[in-house]
Amino acid sequence: MQWYVVASLLTILTSSQGILTTLSQSNGGYKYDYATVPFLAEVFKLIVSAILLWRECKRSPPPKMTTEWKSVRLYPIPSIIYLIHNNVQFATLTYVDTSTYQIMGNLKIVTTALLFRLFLKRKLSNLQWMAIVLLAVGTTTSQVKGCGESSCDSLFSSPIQGYMLGMLSACLSALAGVYTEFLMKKNNDSLYWQNVQLYTFGAIFNLAKLVFDDFRSGFDKGLWWQRLFYGYSITTWMVVLNLGSTGLLVSWLMKYADNIVKVYSTSMAMLLTMVLSVFLFDFKPTVQLFLGIIVCMMSLHMYFAPPTTLVDLPLTIKAAPESAVEVSVDRKTDS
Amino acid sequence: MQWYVVASLLTILTSSQGILTTLSQSNGGYKYDYATVPFLAEVFKLIVSAILLWRECKRSPPPKMTTEWKSVRLYPIPSIIYLIHNNVQFATLTYVDTSTYQIMGNLKIVTTALLFRLFLKRKLSNLQWMAIVLLAVGTTTSQVKGCGESSCDSLFSSPIQGYMLGMLSACLSALAGVYTEFLMKKNNDSLYWQNVQLYTFGAIFNLAKLVFDDFRSGFDKGLWWQRLFYGYSITTWMVVLNLGSTGLLVSWLMKYADNIVKVYSTSMAMLLTMVLSVFLFDFKPTVQLFLGIIVCMMSLHMYFAPPTTLVDLPLTIKAAPESAVEVSVDRKTDS
Repeated sequence: MQWYVVASLLTILTSSQGILTTLSQSNGGYKYDYATVPFLAEVFKLIVSAILLWRECKRSPPPKMTTEWKSVRLYPIPSIIYLIHNNVQFATLTYVDTSTYQIMGNLKIVTTALLFRLFLKRKLSNLQWMAIVLLAVGTTTSQVKGCGESSCDSLFSSPIQGYMLGMLSACLSALAGVYTEFLMKKNNDSLYWQNVQLYTFGAIFNLAKLVFDDFRSGFDKGLWWQRLFYGYSITTWMVVLNLGSTGLLVSWLMKYADNIVKVYSTSMAMLLTMVLSVFLFDFKPTVQLFLGIIVCMMSLHMYFAPPTTLVDLPLTIKAAPESAVEVSVDRKTDS
Repeated sequence: MQWYVVASLLTILTSSQGILTTLSQSNGGYKYDYATVPFLAEVFKLIVSAILLWRECKRSPPPKMTTEWKSVRLYPIPSIIYLIHNNVQFATLTYVDTSTYQIMGNLKIVTTALLFRLFLKRKLSNLQWMAIVLLAVGTTTSQVKGCGESSCDSLFSSPIQGYMLGMLSACLSALAGVYTEFLMKKNNDSLYWQNVQLYTFGAIFNLAKLVFDDFRSGFDKGLWWQRLFYGYSITTWMVVLNLGSTGLLVSWLMKYADNIVKVYSTSMAMLLTMVLSVFLFDFKPTVQLFLGIIVCMMSLHMYFAPPTTLVDLPLTIKAAPESAVEVSVDRKTDS
């Protein structure tokens, strides 16, 4: 399968996630316990990966599986980073309002590219760095509140701790992504075996969170398994399956594409959600949404188009046509 | 002189123009008749160009001057286009509000590039086309009204005639620029001789406008020469000299650089004016101003940086280093 097919699918599913989550609410609130959704999604991903691994085991050659503790012990690390990230996220929101938080979230586009360069030693051209900055600027532009919107939170008026935590949050989010990519690519183990390890720990951590929440709330809302399917509608189940599927696609991209592809997919999904909201939820489109979309599309083209189609290098092409072709091939395998 | 020095000077002077014009107002209005300013600026440009031409004539070899009527008759055309443009501008403003008008003004960036390609047959790379679109998007972003601003004019609510006239206005403005470039470059006549012809007609057309205004107002405000220096302060004179100087710089750029350089200069000037207004006039900076500036800076770099510094072409450079160098030289003389 081509990476861009998977990336497009991820965009569509991530976008549906926002819309399905909104549709699963009733009277602006959740009838079910939202904390149970990520746990069930982890279980879903684990089941799917286990079945696929089992099928792979029956075929020959059998899938490559590293079972040493030295390797397995690396798989809970993404879950641990996400756990810390969730807590930092929570702390950030005590200092800044949600729209400032959302705008700061775009920082993770830039931090991902930085960690991608630093830790994975992947080189980006100047044009690609510019594309990354433009993607962050474009997504931010689309989120800027319109003239005359009811709640006018000032972006520069939160306490400094809020911005520091926002930065930390962006770094942790990038770190989790980059670490997962490192994990998936460090050997040529079967993707499904890697997924099984990843999601086993994912399910355990999510379960631990549910139990911890039970204790913290003093069992006010009952035990976690009593809340597990309580108030679930068809839409809620779709939210679970959708979240699980996006996770599987991200995992595929981490192994066969990279973090930057994922960042583009999810940014495009955010824009698609806003456009769909115009039709579905009577969301009022703003000029800045339109401008942000143009900037993001330009960024997408700048990052992924073969450089020779972007700049005119007539002399080079005339002088050495075969090397120009090689360049474009090199670029394609790179991304 | 290098084109980028002239372009930077144009940016600074164009930016000062907005600030000086604001400073020349008293109690939000003009004590003097603003219509007299462009006329005096034309006269100033004519005097400067005539003196420079006279000095050039005393040296050897004498400047090249085409004096045939076939050539001279082309010089009033820019003035005629500007005259039509001013009237279209006036008509547009009867349909749309000033902020929509200002936002639509950014269309001229794209129309200039289109006419530049169509009439002057100048080729732009795909990256340069993207840079042009980003420049228009960036300047528009910076002008989007902030959340909670007092007057919230809806951008999509004006009658269709307003948008049509706005488009026409953008085309006329681009046509005037592209035509002037054609005129300045069509032969290697002395720049000063070309200027003398251009500004003689410019002064005549501006004078005709003053006389016409006298008739239209039924001589209510007296005769035009009575209003000529009436209420002029030092700042008003600076506005005149500044406007004249920007005109001379534009003329230089049209001969030795091109319309795109001019478009970048004036767009950067618009942003500089907004930044300076934050300090000078307590203008409240918005997030969109900040985002717009980043987009415009990226666009500037995309358009003017040598392509080889933007994209990594390691194989090409290794394979044919001399052709890569030639490309970068070719690009520099091109812009």
